[in-house]
Amino acid sequence: MEADEFRRYGKQMVDFIADYISSIRERRVLPDVYPGYIRDLIPDHAPVEGESWEEVFKDIERVIMPGASSPACTELEMMMLDWLGKMLHLPKEFLFGSKGPGGGVIQGTASEATLVALLSARNKVISASKRNSKDDVPMEKLICYASDQAHSSVEKAAMLGGLKFRSLPVDDALSLRGEVLRAAILEDRAKGKIPFLVVGTLGTTNSCAFDNIKELGEVCSEENLWFHIDAAYAGSAFICSEFRHLLDGVENADSFSMNPHKWLLVNFDCSTMWIKNRHDVVEAFSVNPLYLKHDKEGQIPDYRHWQIPLGRRFRSLKLWFVFRMFGVKRLQAYIRKHVDLAHEFEEQVKKDERFEVVFPVTLGLVCFRVKGSDALNGEVLRHINERGRITLTPTRFKEMYVIRFAVCSKDTEREDISYAWQEICYATSHVLAAGNL
Amino acid sequence: MEADEFRRYGKQMVDFIADYISSIRERRVLPDVYPGYIRDLIPDHAPVEGESWEEVFKDIERVIMPGASSPACTELEMMMLDWLGKMLHLPKEFLFGSKGPGGGVIQGTASEATLVALLSARNKVISASKRNSKDDVPMEKLICYASDQAHSSVEKAAMLGGLKFRSLPVDDALSLRGEVLRAAILEDRAKGKIPFLVVGTLGTTNSCAFDNIKELGEVCSEENLWFHIDAAYAGSAFICSEFRHLLDGVENADSFSMNPHKWLLVNFDCSTMWIKNRHDVVEAFSVNPLYLKHDKEGQIPDYRHWQIPLGRRFRSLKLWFVFRMFGVKRLQAYIRKHVDLAHEFEEQVKKDERFEVVFPVTLGLVCFRVKGSDALNGEVLRHINERGRITLTPTRFKEMYVIRFAVCSKDTEREDISYAWQEICYATSHVLAAGNL
Repeated sequence: MEADEFRRYGKQMVDFIADYISSIRERRVLPDVYPGYIRDLIPDHAPVEGESWEEVFKDIERVIMPGASSPACTELEMMMLDWLGKMLHLPKEFLFGSKGPGGGVIQGTASEATLVALLSARNKVISASKRNSKDDVPMEKLICYASDQAHSSVEKAAMLGGLKFRSLPVDDALSLRGEVLRAAILEDRAKGKIPFLVVGTLGTTNSCAFDNIKELGEVCSEENLWFHIDAAYAGSAFICSEFRHLLDGVENADSFSMNPHKWLLVNFDCSTMWIKNRHDVVEAFSVNPLYLKHDKEGQIPDYRHWQIPLGRRFRSLKLWFVFRMFGVKRLQAYIRKHVDLAHEFEEQVKKDERFEVVFPVTLGLVCFRVKGSDALNGEVLRHINERGRITLTPTRFKEMYVIRFAVCSKDTEREDISYAWQEICYATSHVLAAGNL
Repeated sequence: MEADEFRRYGKQMVDFIADYISSIRERRVLPDVYPGYIRDLIPDHAPVEGESWEEVFKDIERVIMPGASSPACTELEMMMLDWLGKMLHLPKEFLFGSKGPGGGVIQGTASEATLVALLSARNKVISASKRNSKDDVPMEKLICYASDQAHSSVEKAAMLGGLKFRSLPVDDALSLRGEVLRAAILEDRAKGKIPFLVVGTLGTTNSCAFDNIKELGEVCSEENLWFHIDAAYAGSAFICSEFRHLLDGVENADSFSMNPHKWLLVNFDCSTMWIKNRHDVVEAFSVNPLYLKHDKEGQIPDYRHWQIPLGRRFRSLKLWFVFRMFGVKRLQAYIRKHVDLAHEFEEQVKKDERFEVVFPVTLGLVCFRVKGSDALNGEVLRHINERGRITLTPTRFKEMYVIRFAVCSKDTEREDISYAWQEICYATSHVLAAGNL
């Protein structure tokens, strides 16, 4: 939404809220709707073309207010996770619409999604082993895996879950491969450990590298490990057909998460997570497993058993607003524009002999460096950020200091790419001219 | 804020945001402030008298914008936790202002605060035991405690932490006492278990009962257990001098949390938590303990190591706005009004021979029942909620079915209490007239 539209519609929304506050005493205290009522009021998929805010706005009174905060909050979330799941062409096992045990939920962040997957997997392996033997499984024996390029939240999840984590080496493309995983599993089993979870990453933070999830998923299926896929940043791109192949293999995953707040025009926080068998989560998170009964009887899910907190916010509203106002087509165009801009930047870097691109550009991240020492690159980056006109962050790639250029603002245009490139050239020239690095 | 004020100021805020969006290219990308800059721009305590929104609004540009989302988000949170800590007369060890290792943080919900306390305590006991012996402590030996009136989130935290939880019986006032705790600790130690954490509750969900935290804290100090206090609902009342005695004993706690989103006019979610030694949390939550060094050197804390997620929202803004616009005096008046209204309702119940109040009223909750069978009370409650004019919830008290009346809306007035009482009487008469229960 441009500033002027926001000015107009924002004020309309302020009036709506003020009217609501003024008329609250005339409304029913408890909603008077039947379970699943929202399914009958809105389509079962996102619109292809965007709609006007007026259309969306009218539906707040029609669709949301009769269900108030609850059950509307739960039901709209179910619908939006199905909408987004369909945009991503997730296997139907992950969707509520399949009427199976799968479904999606909004977590705050990818860290929480990973922790929820880990605790569910931990509970599953411990429960299974209890059924097979009288002895408790010592938690100290459990071990989980991710690549050494995975986000620190995987190691943190293992630490919070009280479990061992092993980081596995990647190939030259910074990708974790099936054989490396299989060897680690066998090695750890031989030591008496119990491998139970693998977190595969699609689009690593460092360099936007992709684990080979087809291979990892097959190993997990064969070896009976929980397979969670973290596509926090890259996931949004999978709504475009030309990037969807990067998600091939998700059919073997037990859970998958991505963050619409990263690259799908939705404000922080909003991490969407799909689970193939929600009972695995409910059993790990419910202090009263009796609740399970209702789930199995096909009632609306009780999201408090899908997450760490008890209370929840109405985060599906922002997904609903964005999906409708943009439509799938414009969201795809938005992703494609960013990727194109990243490639444009890549071309600039390649044309200048002083620089090198150090990692293939797949989405919106370009990893590059000035040919020369790490100290030189560090100084160039310091100089760029000190000027305060653009901001870049560093990483390490095969022991080299590397600069990360990310296209991630909703307002980025071609001129911004040129502007940023000029800033980088200016700082580089300045540092090179000073010599001694 | 009344509807008319909200209408005016909400639109002013929409304009502010639109202006920000329009002028974003003229702003520095990175803020240019020094660590601790906010301390020099705002007072070190909440105002006693409320200020106008105009005053507060001006300060957004002056105080927040120079520090953008970061570091302003962290620094304002530190200040607000100190403001609220002072309003609650927390021992200075819990405040950043003491320059010791204590300080506060905003978690999403009390469930998360309890889990953070539990995982910190778990890490502390495991680390201590590692220093004393070469063998790992089997996590299966660890055990934590709360009263059988405690919120289910305590049991859930233990489950997620992979640890045993034991619920302890309460006395006639539904209060957990020191001797009961001590006996449980000794009994469990004799069985080879390792007691490591007690969660005391101030203001239980069921009946607003209060554990004897003086006794519990003394036992925890003597027996070297982590003592966490959960005052999710009741905590807000401790800003009033006449209720502050309920918090006496907090000086022996390691951590304390309360939810301003419950009763301090702040929107969900906002659970404030204070920790006496933040290094206990950072050591449990940091995947890179090197970061600790900076903390110890007196830098600004890195809140990502105080919580489960990595990213965070700017939740201290709403505390800042509310504390300033109300001032401490009006917040106290707000709490007192609710408590007075609860007592007014209590009087109505007591005057009608068909009813009984089953638990002493301390704050805004009245637990009462119709004299008669549980079935009768269940039917009365069903009838009340079905009419949809007020909504009440049930609980159990010493095997009896009890109805809970909670004064908790910001708009509740004396007339609402009469109105609710009429609804209750109407439903009761109706059900009694139908007979057969």
